[in-house]
Amino acid sequence: MPSVEEIRSAALRALKAVGVSDRHAETQVSLLLEAELRGTASHGLLRLPRVIDRILSGASNPASEGIQSWRGNALLDVDGDHGLGPVVAMAALDAICGRAAETGVSAAAIRNCDHLGMLAWYAERVASHGQILIALTISEALVHPWGGRRAMLGTNPIAIGVPAEPHPFVFDMATSLVSMGKIHDHANRGIPIPSGWALDQDGNPTTDAVAAKDGAIAPFGGAKGYALGLAFELLVASLTGSAIGTEVRGTLDARYPCNKGDVFIVLEPAGGMAAVVTRFMEEIRGSEPSVADAPVRIPGDRAARTRAQRSSQDVPLADEVWKQIQALAEWRPA
Amino acid sequence: MPSVEEIRSAALRALKAVGVSDRHAETQVSLLLEAELRGTASHGLLRLPRVIDRILSGASNPASEGIQSWRGNALLDVDGDHGLGPVVAMAALDAICGRAAETGVSAAAIRNCDHLGMLAWYAERVASHGQILIALTISEALVHPWGGRRAMLGTNPIAIGVPAEPHPFVFDMATSLVSMGKIHDHANRGIPIPSGWALDQDGNPTTDAVAAKDGAIAPFGGAKGYALGLAFELLVASLTGSAIGTEVRGTLDARYPCNKGDVFIVLEPAGGMAAVVTRFMEEIRGSEPSVADAPVRIPGDRAARTRAQRSSQDVPLADEVWKQIQALAEWRPA
Repeated sequence: MPSVEEIRSAALRALKAVGVSDRHAETQVSLLLEAELRGTASHGLLRLPRVIDRILSGASNPASEGIQSWRGNALLDVDGDHGLGPVVAMAALDAICGRAAETGVSAAAIRNCDHLGMLAWYAERVASHGQILIALTISEALVHPWGGRRAMLGTNPIAIGVPAEPHPFVFDMATSLVSMGKIHDHANRGIPIPSGWALDQDGNPTTDAVAAKDGAIAPFGGAKGYALGLAFELLVASLTGSAIGTEVRGTLDARYPCNKGDVFIVLEPAGGMAAVVTRFMEEIRGSEPSVADAPVRIPGDRAARTRAQRSSQDVPLADEVWKQIQALAEWRPA
Repeated sequence: MPSVEEIRSAALRALKAVGVSDRHAETQVSLLLEAELRGTASHGLLRLPRVIDRILSGASNPASEGIQSWRGNALLDVDGDHGLGPVVAMAALDAICGRAAETGVSAAAIRNCDHLGMLAWYAERVASHGQILIALTISEALVHPWGGRRAMLGTNPIAIGVPAEPHPFVFDMATSLVSMGKIHDHANRGIPIPSGWALDQDGNPTTDAVAAKDGAIAPFGGAKGYALGLAFELLVASLTGSAIGTEVRGTLDARYPCNKGDVFIVLEPAGGMAAVVTRFMEEIRGSEPSVADAPVRIPGDRAARTRAQRSSQDVPLADEVWKQIQALAEWRPA
């Protein structure tokens, strides 16, 4: 298995080969590698070939950090200018974290930038520096409404970061029952998906991961999860002026400029609350479990444990993905 | 059945009898009545006797609108001063809606005020005036962690309002599988609760609504819903400096000053998006349903229909609740 540094080096070479600057390549690779290190392969290096294909097709503009302008003193408007997701998003986040330190709250309304990747990365960064983050993004229509047959909504994840000691609370989930990344991961590995995850292209239930790629994923939590995902999509589109629903393009293809929206809200916590939050999480971890020997978990604990193990070890990258990245690292334009 | 005006009049008299000003009584009763009109009996007049008991016990201070101070230019700090929930919350909302019109985003961090009631009321108000609202509140520990046996978390609802035409999108849900109000409603009506809703005080599953009142409600959507409710609780406590978890008091009793937190975030939408949001909701309503003749629904549609029917008609208030309110309206301190 390749080491973390071997993967990083190959991925950086692959991006530089298609004209990405050192700094933007570092940002993009750090995001993907962090997903691998946290055990979220669906948002890891698996995504790099598409990032590169999008640059080659002209759908992405890897030189851009987005065009920022303030709508009022606390709301940053960002036209992503088809820049790489983490590059545009980090520039926006830097701006609003600084502003929130003055105003108490600041938000970024981003449209037209590429896929942001794992939102936990942003939440970890902001909360590690002592601020609260709410992050929302939408995607191409992949999820069916509760009681519907067609993919109408994005997987519309939310991430929340809250300062705690010694590590922040970091929570990141899609409002779909699973992410499309996980369905792709099953398809890549040639294994079926559990019943209830998805419908096929005719709107009927399926356990075939390949058929599910052309169908629709279920919302999590039934009618409530559907309502939540819809609310996030409406909120993001309303605030950012992005595309919505079936008009969203460019998060899962290599061809179209991405037109979805992303929202960050950064808030200054009240004094002394990191200790309170920390103590409460400890109380939950120590509370009586429903099954003996299966302790109650805090979201993010497993990712943090995996992260600690993997940072000094090799990453179990799928062979197929590693081969692709090595090939991309050697590729040069004709 | 009593008319809307008969209920309003009796409820106002009941509050004035315990010293609430005309204006504050109007605000509190409007909230409870609106819940009845939207078909959410669990958050309706059922709650009035406790509001009054809290005033009589000294736990509430119905004269206060909270003590407001700005933490930065866009974040309003509110010590609720044990005022009535909707009175303190509306004063905060008025302040931040005005501020968000200038700054693009503004938030209120509220602690120490009484139960806010149905959050949809606030979302409807803000979104009807053309702004986006995210509302979060926490409650006494009523919900068990996923994989746990004890009530550790509040029901931690979220409401989101987004401008649309002719009515805004208004979404309001608890992160518990059901609200404690609904469990009380079942207990009041003497009917069992469905399996899976709750645990009894020993941490075992129950269908007895009375036993569930002393136990713990399940989170909605399994591990994901638990994670979401926990994230909201940590966020609210971190931002407001409120109590957290099992230390929260005063949302379901008549004795303790309320120490939970509430968060409002108001955002200015991008221009022209109300029409886009409206068209997308129409597209979803018109999409192919999984069961013929069961059209896909948008959250809030049923409440809006019920609201339209009931505003000119009688409200099907539970006999027991109406009797209590009539008695309270006639009651005078010794």
